[in-house]
Amino acid sequence: VPALVTALTALVPPDTPVHLGATSQDIIDTAAMLVTRRCLGEALASLSAAAQRCATLTRSHAGTVMAGRTLLQQAVPTTFGLVTAGWLTAIDEARAQLHQVRASALAVQYGGAAGTLAALGESGQAGSGVTLAGLLADELGLPAPVLPWHTNRLRVLSLAAALTTACAALGKVARDVTLLAQTEVAEVHEGAGGGSSTMPHKQNPVAAVVILGHTKQAPHLLASLASAAEQELQRAAGAWHAEWLPLTHLLRLTVSASAWSAEMLAGLRPDPARMRANLDAARGLPLAEHVAALLAPALGRAHAHDLLVRASARATADGLSLADALLADHDAAADLATAGVTRDQLEAAHDPASYLGSAPEFVARALAAHDHCEASLGT
Amino acid sequence: VPALVTALTALVPPDTPVHLGATSQDIIDTAAMLVTRRCLGEALASLSAAAQRCATLTRSHAGTVMAGRTLLQQAVPTTFGLVTAGWLTAIDEARAQLHQVRASALAVQYGGAAGTLAALGESGQAGSGVTLAGLLADELGLPAPVLPWHTNRLRVLSLAAALTTACAALGKVARDVTLLAQTEVAEVHEGAGGGSSTMPHKQNPVAAVVILGHTKQAPHLLASLASAAEQELQRAAGAWHAEWLPLTHLLRLTVSASAWSAEMLAGLRPDPARMRANLDAARGLPLAEHVAALLAPALGRAHAHDLLVRASARATADGLSLADALLADHDAAADLATAGVTRDQLEAAHDPASYLGSAPEFVARALAAHDHCEASLGT
Amino acid sequence: VPALVTALTALVPPDTPVHLGATSQDIIDTAAMLVTRRCLGEALASLSAAAQRCATLTRSHAGTVMAGRTLLQQAVPTTFGLVTAGWLTAIDEARAQLHQVRASALAVQYGGAAGTLAALGESGQAGSGVTLAGLLADELGLPAPVLPWHTNRLRVLSLAAALTTACAALGKVARDVTLLAQTEVAEVHEGAGGGSSTMPHKQNPVAAVVILGHTKQAPHLLASLASAAEQELQRAAGAWHAEWLPLTHLLRLTVSASAWSAEMLAGLRPDPARMRANLDAARGLPLAEHVAALLAPALGRAHAHDLLVRASARATADGLSLADALLADHDAAADLATAGVTRDQLEAAHDPASYLGSAPEFVARALAAHDHCEASLGT
Amino acid sequence: VPALVTALTALVPPDTPVHLGATSQDIIDTAAMLVTRRCLGEALASLSAAAQRCATLTRSHAGTVMAGRTLLQQAVPTTFGLVTAGWLTAIDEARAQLHQVRASALAVQYGGAAGTLAALGESGQAGSGVTLAGLLADELGLPAPVLPWHTNRLRVLSLAAALTTACAALGKVARDVTLLAQTEVAEVHEGAGGGSSTMPHKQNPVAAVVILGHTKQAPHLLASLASAAEQELQRAAGAWHAEWLPLTHLLRLTVSASAWSAEMLAGLRPDPARMRANLDAARGLPLAEHVAALLAPALGRAHAHDLLVRASARATADGLSLADALLADHDAAADLATAGVTRDQLEAAHDPASYLGSAPEFVARALAAHDHCEASLGT
Repeated sequence: VPALVTALTALVPPDTPVHLGATSQDIIDTAAMLVTRRCLGEALASLSAAAQRCATLTRSHAGTVMAGRTLLQQAVPTTFGLVTAGWLTAIDEARAQLHQVRASALAVQYGGAAGTLAALGESGQAGSGVTLAGLLADELGLPAPVLPWHTNRLRVLSLAAALTTACAALGKVARDVTLLAQTEVAEVHEGAGGGSSTMPHKQNPVAAVVILGHTKQAPHLLASLASAAEQELQRAAGAWHAEWLPLTHLLRLTVSASAWSAEMLAGLRPDPARMRANLDAARGLPLAEHVAALLAPALGRAHAHDLLVRASARATADGLSLADALLADHDAAADLATAGVTRDQLEAAHDPASYLGSAPEFVARALAAHDHCEASLGT
Repeated sequence: VPALVTALTALVPPDTPVHLGATSQDIIDTAAMLVTRRCLGEALASLSAAAQRCATLTRSHAGTVMAGRTLLQQAVPTTFGLVTAGWLTAIDEARAQLHQVRASALAVQYGGAAGTLAALGESGQAGSGVTLAGLLADELGLPAPVLPWHTNRLRVLSLAAALTTACAALGKVARDVTLLAQTEVAEVHEGAGGGSSTMPHKQNPVAAVVILGHTKQAPHLLASLASAAEQELQRAAGAWHAEWLPLTHLLRLTVSASAWSAEMLAGLRPDPARMRANLDAARGLPLAEHVAALLAPALGRAHAHDLLVRASARATADGLSLADALLADHDAAADLATAGVTRDQLEAAHDPASYLGSAPEFVARALAAHDHCEASLGT
Repeated sequence: VPALVTALTALVPPDTPVHLGATSQDIIDTAAMLVTRRCLGEALASLSAAAQRCATLTRSHAGTVMAGRTLLQQAVPTTFGLVTAGWLTAIDEARAQLHQVRASALAVQYGGAAGTLAALGESGQAGSGVTLAGLLADELGLPAPVLPWHTNRLRVLSLAAALTTACAALGKVARDVTLLAQTEVAEVHEGAGGGSSTMPHKQNPVAAVVILGHTKQAPHLLASLASAAEQELQRAAGAWHAEWLPLTHLLRLTVSASAWSAEMLAGLRPDPARMRANLDAARGLPLAEHVAALLAPALGRAHAHDLLVRASARATADGLSLADALLADHDAAADLATAGVTRDQLEAAHDPASYLGSAPEFVARALAAHDHCEASLGT
Repeated sequence: VPALVTALTALVPPDTPVHLGATSQDIIDTAAMLVTRRCLGEALASLSAAAQRCATLTRSHAGTVMAGRTLLQQAVPTTFGLVTAGWLTAIDEARAQLHQVRASALAVQYGGAAGTLAALGESGQAGSGVTLAGLLADELGLPAPVLPWHTNRLRVLSLAAALTTACAALGKVARDVTLLAQTEVAEVHEGAGGGSSTMPHKQNPVAAVVILGHTKQAPHLLASLASAAEQELQRAAGAWHAEWLPLTHLLRLTVSASAWSAEMLAGLRPDPARMRANLDAARGLPLAEHVAALLAPALGRAHAHDLLVRASARATADGLSLADALLADHDAAADLATAGVTRDQLEAAHDPASYLGSAPEFVARALAAHDHCEASLGT
């Protein structure tokens, strides 16, 4: 009888059962579920705050034009509201998963030595195992599982996957913040950037860096837990013990990344003027697709595309705007004339606000989905 | 314009739009979803067959007594039906997850260059992006997502987690089969064991080995996909491309592991006589807990436990049965007398069939849960 | 200026430089190297003890015949000395790698804000950065690297790979111990098995289980560190911070797994009689390859193989020895006569000690390699 | 006898031994080593080309001033030559590891059914296993290992670690290229950027993106192989089979990433004017540390740091240069006077070329180390 059981027995009245019919794994797994439940509550509160803030930013900046960037190159215009709508949708999806896991994956563990609860008597006897397991589940407020799950670790895997999902959603937000906060981009700033021990001028995106430092670890902890799910027979020789650290860590990292994210988003300061300036500094190139579409009906799609490839290259080489590069090229100018496209039309096509496509509808959909999420999660 | 788009354009009537407003990622992600849907169908069919077979084994062997083993040591008795009930429950849980992922995680991808579908016209125009995206979704039979998911990879992560869950469930079954099929254990055999290129006598548990060879890779492919979820801004520089191989592989491994599992379980031959013989060869030691419980009311739990620890050590050292070791020990015999426990009672406590605890109820619960799973999955 | 630097400054005489020209990463990376050096020393001491003990077991049991097992089935005979020789070779390889990493991968970190040490003056000035970095390296007894390694994390990766190599070597040993210690195999026992909180008879292979619980985590911590090696420009935004926990953990797990392994091996008790009994219980089947080789010259290799496949199946089905199964089969008996193989020759071929092949030479090679390892590591 | 062995036997003269004494794993492991040797040769050739190009860039750009960036913020000046020296050093370290692995980790596999080579006769007999294994090793040009390594997978792990090291070095280079090639940074360009299927103006850093798409997978394949190293007894039930795909993949990804890297670096076009312009656009802020050092002797280090924090904040808020912000502040101006620092000295301290610290010496060390690497690798 382990020392802890002896010690507990000494603390309670004589004849009070201690550790009755339980194996150590029963206690540790059940305790892990109780700790998990508390952690999920904390993470969900932070994620809820993060989502609210994203929704507010989305509503405020649905019309804030900025460069959409693909492969880290300016591509076509988008809006900051659509960017934050993307963050919002991902965070809400992560919240829904965490809620689902809290409702379905947690469970009391109580199986005794080899999952039969034999020490509590045979099936059908009064107070046999299944009955007592049900009472324990009720007392702790945890569901009673179909079977003891000593070597069925799917609920640990589901939990870990949901935690990693939250980290994935937050890591993407933090990655975007570090990129948009770069000195040369400067489209967003953290409310309270962090100083440097040597460089007086630094305003580091500290929260985003901390979040990434957390979230980058999650996939490996998930893999550690998933690998550990191959557990032998009635109780495993090592794989179960290999779960303790990764699960503890993944919970801690998720709760912490969630809290940092709520704080980062609360203080996030977008700079719409700089967003517009960065887009303008690209001299119309991110609108090349738009201009090509203007010319395609008359010139054919392939021809229009090639023409714009050539003009874009010239604009880049000579530091011209895309419109000027087109008009400065004899063949291109002839093509424009053929297509009946005037300089005014050409310049109108260079207005990023005229080429936002479905961005407003997408923003509206994301906000509606968020409202639905809030309603269904009952927060 | 890429060669493929040019080639497709040449194949269709003039003026037929090809790749309209789409970016390459739209095509590849959507294609991946279509392939995934087909793979999930195949995996689910195999898993359904595997589950049916587990249910049959569970019903047939609810009373087949065998050693429960923890840390690879004989612990207390269990039944082979409870073992297969554990396999069944895990496979059913995996099936439910795959069904859920098939219903919720798959989605058409259609966002154009940077997720605004700007090439299809502005919001509110006839035939604008959101409308066309909806039509595309209908045509393909895939849900339309709230937003293009170019850099929100949570659905890939959910899919990968569900696939890994299936692999985890199957890997545990295969691990158990390799252990129970060991030469020295020999409690189950694969229907058609595999021969060896050199050893004429080998009947290898080939299916179980192949399954483990598959399932052990899944956690790492999951981690690869989860790590790749940190994607920059509107489309990622590398992380998206890092998804292609792991997702392909994980689908392939899961479909294949499911098929092998269905086949392995279909042919699995349990050997109840050997199960009983292995238990009997332990000379009553796996019933030590039972005997301790018999003595505890009179002697106190700690005293009874210590007495059995001593008797077990003697039984092991001298090759005695537990009962004989107890009776051969002067102090123990005195304790038995004190407790009023007769030799008959002692020997009755050594019958494994008398110490199965809640195993029958657990088996019934697992079968009921399986019926419920079948009903809700509509297979 | 961070609080810690202020606090340190207050502790030293006025005008004493504190944190001079350094960035926080300089301090943390260098500290990590110092901690690592100490951990490597501890792990190497334990691994050395583990290797000595394996060498002793190898020498003692070079002639102890046991079943070689492949895919967890008895295959052909081997010796326990060859098994421990395999453990020895792997542990020695891991030791060599850890020594190499200790000599080459550790290095002082000192680059200042962005790896130029600019705060210490320009190149060529007295007391400039490179000079001071060299003095710091000397003082700490750590090599001075070619360049500051703020975002070149290959040495962390090398270190993590060597630690994981040690865990891989130890995990294999522990896995073998759990398998050989199974109730039904019982060929080795841990010196002091662990008791159970409920089951009085249990003698769990506790050290092996703890070791596996440690070593199973290592690959994922390695992957975490390898993924974190993609670090941006002069200092990374998150990936560096993601190294702290995994590196700390991997060091701790390796040191602990090494200590447990030394202890487990020190107490390991092989049971040669049981080894022989388990082999004999297989009724000659593990010698089927040997018998086939006896018949192949006369019957052809394929024919001999097929004959033994048939005889093995009969032996298994009817509980006969392989020899009896052969002699009981009319066609086989005729083949034996054709081949001029007598019953005595047949029975001699069933002696496992006659079919150990190169085992003795392999054992000798492993011991020679161990002596060479000891000499070159200078322990 | 497997079909393949039968087929091979039919192809060779009668009595020619085929698959003699070998098990399937002997063949597959040895084949994997031969394939690996070829892959390493290809990867090393590409990495050598990549290193040469880095060395050339380093020599050419040792004096090319650019912003050093930490946490993606401009920090202090550095040189492009020091950046490429960092790439060079890492690639050379990876090359050295691959060379070492090629020399030490590859080995023939030849152990027969359970690692004793018993089918080749007993130790000491003419032509016994160890002798034949040596001849096979000679014939294939692969080292003969101390022991068959059926379940000692450390050489696979070492190989995988070295491949991952190469990927880590290349991934860091590619990450830097994507960041420096951003539209808003534009300090380097790929020679032949890739077009977009929809956006005529895009010049994507295609090679860098492909490289990252490869290298991000490596850590997980490494973990897959490291996890698979826990192999049972004489040959493993599943873990060995789990190596095939990850090893194949890791080899393929490393060879391909190396080739792409050589090509990317060959065409890389740095833009020194833009580097300088980006630094100048920061209005002296990256020199704040330098200015603080100028003032520290007179004002004390903490006071000077605080003064510069204040001035930096004002420069940022009001769009002033750091010098102007200092001079515009009454208190700061007084401090400057106290310190006897003139406007000319202040402006001189703003010259990035005056604050490169040990960059030139570090560049020289990296080039010397590269020369040493070239000499020792004999290329």
